[in-house]
Amino acid sequence: VHQPEHKTWSFNLSDNLIWRNIWRKQEDSISNDLLLPERAESLKTKCPPASDALSVVGVDMRKEVNAAHHYTGEYMTDVLVVRRGQQFIIDVSFNRPATPQDDFQLEFLIGADPAANKESLVVVNFGNHSGAVWAGQIVEARETVVSLGVTASSRAIVGLYRMYVAVAMGNGMQRTEKDPNTNFYLLFNPWNPDDDVFYPDDAGRSEYVLNSTGLIYMGTSDQVTERGWVYGQFEEGILDACIYIMDACRMPIHNRGDVVKMVRTASALINSQDDNGVLIGNWSDDFSMGTPPTTWTGSASILQKYHTSGAPVSFAQCWVYAGVLNTFLRCLGIPSRIITNFNSAHDNTGNLKTELIFKPDGTPDRHNTQDSIWNFHCWNEAFMKRVDLPQKYSGWQVVDATPQETNDGYFRCGPAPVIAIRDGELCHPFDCGFVFAEVNSDLIHMKSDKYGNMTPFKVDTTYVGKLIYTKSLSGWGPEDITGTYKHPEGSLADQQTMALAEQYGCSRDNSDFPASKLSIQISAQAGYVGDPLRVSVTFYNQSETMKSVKVHMEISPTYYTGVVASDPLKVEDFRLDLDAFQSSIKVFELSPQEYVSQLDSNSSLEVTVTGQTDDVEVSEVKTITLKLPPLNITLSGQPQVNRDMYVMVSFTNTMGFPLTGAKLAMEGAGLLETQDDSSYEPNIPQGRVQTDEAGTPDAPGGVLASCDCLPVRTALQWRRRKRRRRRKRRRRRKRRGV
Amino acid sequence: VHQPEHKTWSFNLSDNLIWRNIWRKQEDSISNDLLLPERAESLKTKCPPASDALSVVGVDMRKEVNAAHHYTGEYMTDVLVVRRGQQFIIDVSFNRPATPQDDFQLEFLIGADPAANKESLVVVNFGNHSGAVWAGQIVEARETVVSLGVTASSRAIVGLYRMYVAVAMGNGMQRTEKDPNTNFYLLFNPWNPDDDVFYPDDAGRSEYVLNSTGLIYMGTSDQVTERGWVYGQFEEGILDACIYIMDACRMPIHNRGDVVKMVRTASALINSQDDNGVLIGNWSDDFSMGTPPTTWTGSASILQKYHTSGAPVSFAQCWVYAGVLNTFLRCLGIPSRIITNFNSAHDNTGNLKTELIFKPDGTPDRHNTQDSIWNFHCWNEAFMKRVDLPQKYSGWQVVDATPQETNDGYFRCGPAPVIAIRDGELCHPFDCGFVFAEVNSDLIHMKSDKYGNMTPFKVDTTYVGKLIYTKSLSGWGPEDITGTYKHPEGSLADQQTMALAEQYGCSRDNSDFPASKLSIQISAQAGYVGDPLRVSVTFYNQSETMKSVKVHMEISPTYYTGVVASDPLKVEDFRLDLDAFQSSIKVFELSPQEYVSQLDSNSSLEVTVTGQTDDVEVSEVKTITLKLPPLNITLSGQPQVNRDMYVMVSFTNTMGFPLTGAKLAMEGAGLLETQDDSSYEPNIPQGRVQTDEAGTPDAPGGVLASCDCLPVRTALQWRRRKRRRRRKRRRRRKRRGV
Repeated sequence: VHQPEHKTWSFNLSDNLIWRNIWRKQEDSISNDLLLPERAESLKTKCPPASDALSVVGVDMRKEVNAAHHYTGEYMTDVLVVRRGQQFIIDVSFNRPATPQDDFQLEFLIGADPAANKESLVVVNFGNHSGAVWAGQIVEARETVVSLGVTASSRAIVGLYRMYVAVAMGNGMQRTEKDPNTNFYLLFNPWNPDDDVFYPDDAGRSEYVLNSTGLIYMGTSDQVTERGWVYGQFEEGILDACIYIMDACRMPIHNRGDVVKMVRTASALINSQDDNGVLIGNWSDDFSMGTPPTTWTGSASILQKYHTSGAPVSFAQCWVYAGVLNTFLRCLGIPSRIITNFNSAHDNTGNLKTELIFKPDGTPDRHNTQDSIWNFHCWNEAFMKRVDLPQKYSGWQVVDATPQETNDGYFRCGPAPVIAIRDGELCHPFDCGFVFAEVNSDLIHMKSDKYGNMTPFKVDTTYVGKLIYTKSLSGWGPEDITGTYKHPEGSLADQQTMALAEQYGCSRDNSDFPASKLSIQISAQAGYVGDPLRVSVTFYNQSETMKSVKVHMEISPTYYTGVVASDPLKVEDFRLDLDAFQSSIKVFELSPQEYVSQLDSNSSLEVTVTGQTDDVEVSEVKTITLKLPPLNITLSGQPQVNRDMYVMVSFTNTMGFPLTGAKLAMEGAGLLETQDDSSYEPNIPQGRVQTDEAGTPDAPGGVLASCDCLPVRTALQWRRRKRRRRRKRRRRRKRRGV
Repeated sequence: VHQPEHKTWSFNLSDNLIWRNIWRKQEDSISNDLLLPERAESLKTKCPPASDALSVVGVDMRKEVNAAHHYTGEYMTDVLVVRRGQQFIIDVSFNRPATPQDDFQLEFLIGADPAANKESLVVVNFGNHSGAVWAGQIVEARETVVSLGVTASSRAIVGLYRMYVAVAMGNGMQRTEKDPNTNFYLLFNPWNPDDDVFYPDDAGRSEYVLNSTGLIYMGTSDQVTERGWVYGQFEEGILDACIYIMDACRMPIHNRGDVVKMVRTASALINSQDDNGVLIGNWSDDFSMGTPPTTWTGSASILQKYHTSGAPVSFAQCWVYAGVLNTFLRCLGIPSRIITNFNSAHDNTGNLKTELIFKPDGTPDRHNTQDSIWNFHCWNEAFMKRVDLPQKYSGWQVVDATPQETNDGYFRCGPAPVIAIRDGELCHPFDCGFVFAEVNSDLIHMKSDKYGNMTPFKVDTTYVGKLIYTKSLSGWGPEDITGTYKHPEGSLADQQTMALAEQYGCSRDNSDFPASKLSIQISAQAGYVGDPLRVSVTFYNQSETMKSVKVHMEISPTYYTGVVASDPLKVEDFRLDLDAFQSSIKVFELSPQEYVSQLDSNSSLEVTVTGQTDDVEVSEVKTITLKLPPLNITLSGQPQVNRDMYVMVSFTNTMGFPLTGAKLAMEGAGLLETQDDSSYEPNIPQGRVQTDEAGTPDAPGGVLASCDCLPVRTALQWRRRKRRRRRKRRRRRKRRGV
């Protein structure tokens, strides 16, 4: 039990006039108690306690017991962590046994400017005084020690609270001194049916709230790859970092109990676009000024870096934003998951037309094609009750931290109810129309004439939002949740959705074209990077006359954002004569030397083929993502929490040449110390390279390693075992001879 | 007709790869054509024209004719101003008569990065090429001159366009050179039924779009005062200033045809809270660093100052924000008006409880009373079709530029459909809940006990949103539009509204209290500032027993924001014995010396009276606004446009002492030059002061003058007369001997 030196001072609110407008509210958006020391100063002891007066000699926050009941045992902090709407126990020891005549209370404060009517100053009585917002009861009294049960309201502000014990004394109250050891964190509570983040089952809670590692899907719809991610929401300092994020953007304290506001704010804060948020995006190929997005293996190091430096961290692409946002949400107790939308439309005008423009000569007009379709785009879903909307919109909500459009002035997106997207009900907050376009845009092939006019000649309504994946509930495979975003293509429900969406201002191109007699099909078996690439293009002529087709074909390296990274690697223009009802196949080859050096970090290639006859236009585009040689991770013996172990990461370079400037990073729950930038490999020769790391995991989890632009996988899990963190620390100190 | 030197160059889009993400889009949010010179450079003449080729020798934008048909004659600019969805005429003269074989087109560009599929590059053909978004027809052809009729789409981007005439030439096009004289402004069009800002009748359009002066209501619900305001949306440079505002905040060009986005952006831009907006708010009493909010007489000088300096202008309070936003909206063609909500709740937590807290001893607890009720609050209404919402929500929308709450991260509010507020349907964008609280909050009198607990003892559901005024459609009186925001208090519809609002998360305090047997009534006949003030308080005892009441009374100067400006001017504590069913009146006097020097710029006083017996609590609060001596404006002879005239402003200081540091400002449509800060009066002695100004109004309108914190009124209007602005200028120049 912690025993502070015994002092008391009596408290009464200073009456000095305060400026009650935004300035003051901004001041109130800082939850660290900068302002409180002075206030405490100004509250010198007024009435010295009577000799026999009841007074406090010690407070025990009962961390072990409370943590177990509140599912917060894994947070690596010495401060108590509890959840809303569920009782926690605090032991107060007095100078003498308390009698029914004694009148004492607990006072909970959060933020720089606590106020009772803003619920940032909460008084809990154990007599029968009315008006308390939080419930309190005396659980047990043994001699001088009283066990008090406190239940924070289910709507309480989330964050770091300070606590005082106050004893009624004549007309005043005597309070314990300010003491960091009686601080505690209050979180959202998915276990509490009255909490807006309540999640109905254990499997969901242990995946969407408690699981600290996960998988993120990438690649293309027909070549899905995956990447492991360590969310690390329980790692040392992460909870503080999350609260710091809210402080950094001056989020008003009184909004921090409202999950809708919390989630919307978070989507703006994880990117640094307008506010001074966590991550700087970089979709170029030059990451020399920071860490390449592909090198990160988890969120913890990013959040710690941001918290210590206070400056945005370089660099992120969509899955990094999603990974860090997921950590933020799970850390505060909001159920969340990362989803991947394949062929994600990035429509600049927010209509449902994504245009692909070709010049009169049939070559792609890259300058005017401003919309882009991302091979994949990752965002988050957060699970909550939408108290601000009709009931049906509760459940999973889209939240996107990647800065794409300036929705509403800020780079932010959501929460948008997934069901509203599915049903085209885009008239509710927030940003439903934008998300709807990402999964439902039509891909329109346009041809420009010499006058600058553009005319559509092909509309593909099935290309965008081809597939939507998330990690399965309890397993390491994908779960296909496309059906939660879209009714089956062409179904009646789908038609109704589209009609409704148009009614809410999503304009579409409804021109429909007779099935063309001429068609093109592109196929390529994607091997490993370094293998020769074979692309075969089949031309079909379903008409009853011979067709002479002017063909243009080009292969260009592309970013996963659909943006072409450089000039084409291969261009071919030729004429092709197709007899009636005939087809013909052309095969194009790329040698490793021709393409590997040109690949950007996402290793995909875009193949564009257009055909022109005097009467018809045809065009086809296909993105090919090449597989990358795996990184192998092996662990020494039977890995267990608190056992020293060795991690071996090896990689075989199958390409015909050395890889230069590659970077190896490694991360594991409780293994953060092993991840450092010193493990830098300037050069990976051909053949096998290997690195060994030692570490002592102090949490259950897995190990992730990444080798620059190479994908990573989680290694075998090790057995979950109850941790005795404090004891372990002591052990460590002993070892160090402290 | 303007005759540029004859040059041509042929145009073809440079193919260089561009970075198609937010960076590029930000670049595109600048409508001045910074980037275009280089591009023009890169487009050197390719094909010299054949000798007999058709080529352009001149373009006439037909300003006079077009302006008349588009209701834009009053804009003081030499550049053509037209509206969307309505034909305007352009005369093109060629080197020879055009033949049907000749193939030419007009090209309209806006923004730094025009693109056909973003409708920022629009091609209009006069042959029969398909796919044009804007309609074009040949209206008349006389010899070498062709009159072309162009109709911009009803959804076209609003702003400053550049125009080129292009003639088909072999495989390319030959274009006229870039020429500022062929630029034109395109505005929203309330006369066009297909425009989202269509307003159904002429009376409305001439008030809400064309009227450049208006009235703003202030004071208290039972003592309404008014203030004239010169919107000056047609003044020289204002239209440019409005476009500059959008550029300054990098509003994407392609959003500038969308009235919902435009209005929402504007509400954030007029204040400088987070973006680098137009006005800096200041609710203190120290305006030494800028112009006192009460000194402004109109928007024009503010917008010009902002445009020329690029820095936010000091200082504003709510009516200044509303005045400038109104100018912005009307200038761009969006119907708008200013409304005043009396007893406007400024609720910090967004619930429906506005708390007034009293200490155990019955004195007001100013520290904990964080919510405030503004005597009045001004915001704007903009009239539009909400394409993003179900039909019923079209019509007037609340837009508020005053930085109160950070709605959605930004200091912005609206557009919120007025009808959604009335019916409690708060589940649609934007910020309906916040506006709903401003007009519907309950005023809750709370008492805190020694434990810090608060218990309500009185709930007043009728105090907030007492009265809502706007200037009447065609007259200089107020129009009561309370009914458009609120169903009759207590009606069934009202109960339904409240129930629905609670369902959407607006928590209320539904505790109801038996009518108290003890009651207080405060009354005061508000005279002029400088008269002695008499406040009479009546105490009623409706119980059948004698009551001994402990009374506390205090009178404090307050800002119009409800914030008490300083310590009370008068405090009285006394005991009052009231026999059964008796009442008793107490009268309190304040001499001019006691209060006038203490008044803040809004000249209101708050009277608070509380009474306590051993069993009941009563309290009453009343705000008194004192009248201010009027400023008299007289004009010499019969004022007419383009006639020199004299304006006499006189003021009689009826107060018992000189007014120091007063400032006289004057403004009239087309009289801006007469407003300058040199007209500074350090000291207004007792008795009458007068100032004479000379000026030549070049627009119909009125004159406004303000004397620091004294209210202003519009003087008599003078006869509207057609202006010959250009000629007038010449006349002037002649006079100056230019």
